[in-house]
Amino acid sequence: MPELRAIPVPGIPEINPGDRIAPLILAALNQSNTALAAGDILVVTHKIVSKAEGALVALDSIQPSRWARGWAKRFHLDARVTQLALSQAQRVVRRKNGVIITETAHGLVCANSGVDVSNVDGGRNAVLLPRDPDASARRLHRELKASLGFAVPIIITDTFGRPWREGLTEVAIGVAGMKPFRDFRARRDAHGYHLRVTLEAVADELAGMAGLACGKLSGIPVCIIRGFEFETGRGSAREMIREAKRDLFR
Amino acid sequence: MPELRAIPVPGIPEINPGDRIAPLILAALNQSNTALAAGDILVVTHKIVSKAEGALVALDSIQPSRWARGWAKRFHLDARVTQLALSQAQRVVRRKNGVIITETAHGLVCANSGVDVSNVDGGRNAVLLPRDPDASARRLHRELKASLGFAVPIIITDTFGRPWREGLTEVAIGVAGMKPFRDFRARRDAHGYHLRVTLEAVADELAGMAGLACGKLSGIPVCIIRGFEFETGRGSAREMIREAKRDLFR
Repeated sequence: MPELRAIPVPGIPEINPGDRIAPLILAALNQSNTALAAGDILVVTHKIVSKAEGALVALDSIQPSRWARGWAKRFHLDARVTQLALSQAQRVVRRKNGVIITETAHGLVCANSGVDVSNVDGGRNAVLLPRDPDASARRLHRELKASLGFAVPIIITDTFGRPWREGLTEVAIGVAGMKPFRDFRARRDAHGYHLRVTLEAVADELAGMAGLACGKLSGIPVCIIRGFEFETGRGSAREMIREAKRDLFR
Repeated sequence: MPELRAIPVPGIPEINPGDRIAPLILAALNQSNTALAAGDILVVTHKIVSKAEGALVALDSIQPSRWARGWAKRFHLDARVTQLALSQAQRVVRRKNGVIITETAHGLVCANSGVDVSNVDGGRNAVLLPRDPDASARRLHRELKASLGFAVPIIITDTFGRPWREGLTEVAIGVAGMKPFRDFRARRDAHGYHLRVTLEAVADELAGMAGLACGKLSGIPVCIIRGFEFETGRGSAREMIREAKRDLFR
């Protein structure tokens, strides 16, 4: 049985709008004497992607609505962040105890539309989700392939909460170069019985694995996964979002 | 930066009621020339725990209710499994399109109360969740420590779906010997800003990582995680279940 490994890639510098990530990742790999190999997967936190794409908003530029000011005051929040979270939502899913769960333009259901003020210049700017994380993943996939001569699947991640369970986990919001699922639908187990588990969200499990290895505080936004037998494909994290009509919790 | 590794443990035999798992795991490790080391975590799928504990029900012994028969007929399901799922629930959370989401006696919210008919003698028996998965984890933790001379944290897993996203992932339903969370609440990032991400559900991410390495069809129910700096503690997966009053989706 092959081992599965998560290898952090240190040395990625602070990213600024307009930076190209692919050469910075390759330089960091070089610097740490780590080489990407065929069969590897690269997991990248969305924050460096958003920064490079300029998906930033100066908090001082935001005029909070009366509602946002009231909500923020009540729960000791920054009204500008509340306002920005609402402006990034196509729908508010739940709003309670200072938590706003929204559905973003991408269809992602998460807290505050994924708006984040940590790790950006001491909080003066907010980081948004990339406009099209699958497209961001495809671009990085293409650029790395051009340099390396072989394709490495890309997973772009964010940190989401979930109903019923405490704590947050990393999930895939952009995927390129691999199928985000492992599909057991046509298969039977060793006893000839159809499997109850039919579609495994491997892109989310890979995102979580990278989160464990690189950590929220280590400042390491890039992780290599080695030893996972992914299925090659165009890939998309969009297809991981359940259609509204199939969803029991919208 | 240390690497994180998932190492499958092959050679666990078919488990029967009354079997003791700890010696079987140690024998399988021996057989594959793999030794547990201090710092390792052991991830075990709940199915072998349930079987060893005799948490099995013969499907022929179940009398489905009129409602269960109607539901099962409508959605081409086994009415006995529907009946068993309902009998294992303390509450039905959603019921639609042939999917029954329940809250189990443990407080877990999942499909069919975690009742599973795959991988058990061709479907003649159903496997229930362990009665107290944290206690099962503590027992295994204690027995392994007695043999090894050092403590190895235990995570017992099941495969759950989730709202809004397609596909299933492995989650922790029993934990012993480590804290299930990594807590960033008192910490600030490199810019001195409080982190948005405060509590990382590492036990769930570790469960997912083990799921990737061992796979649903490989028949390998035990996985070593090496290189993760867990925080020692009594541990519990029960504390990963959000209290009803804090939950926006009950």
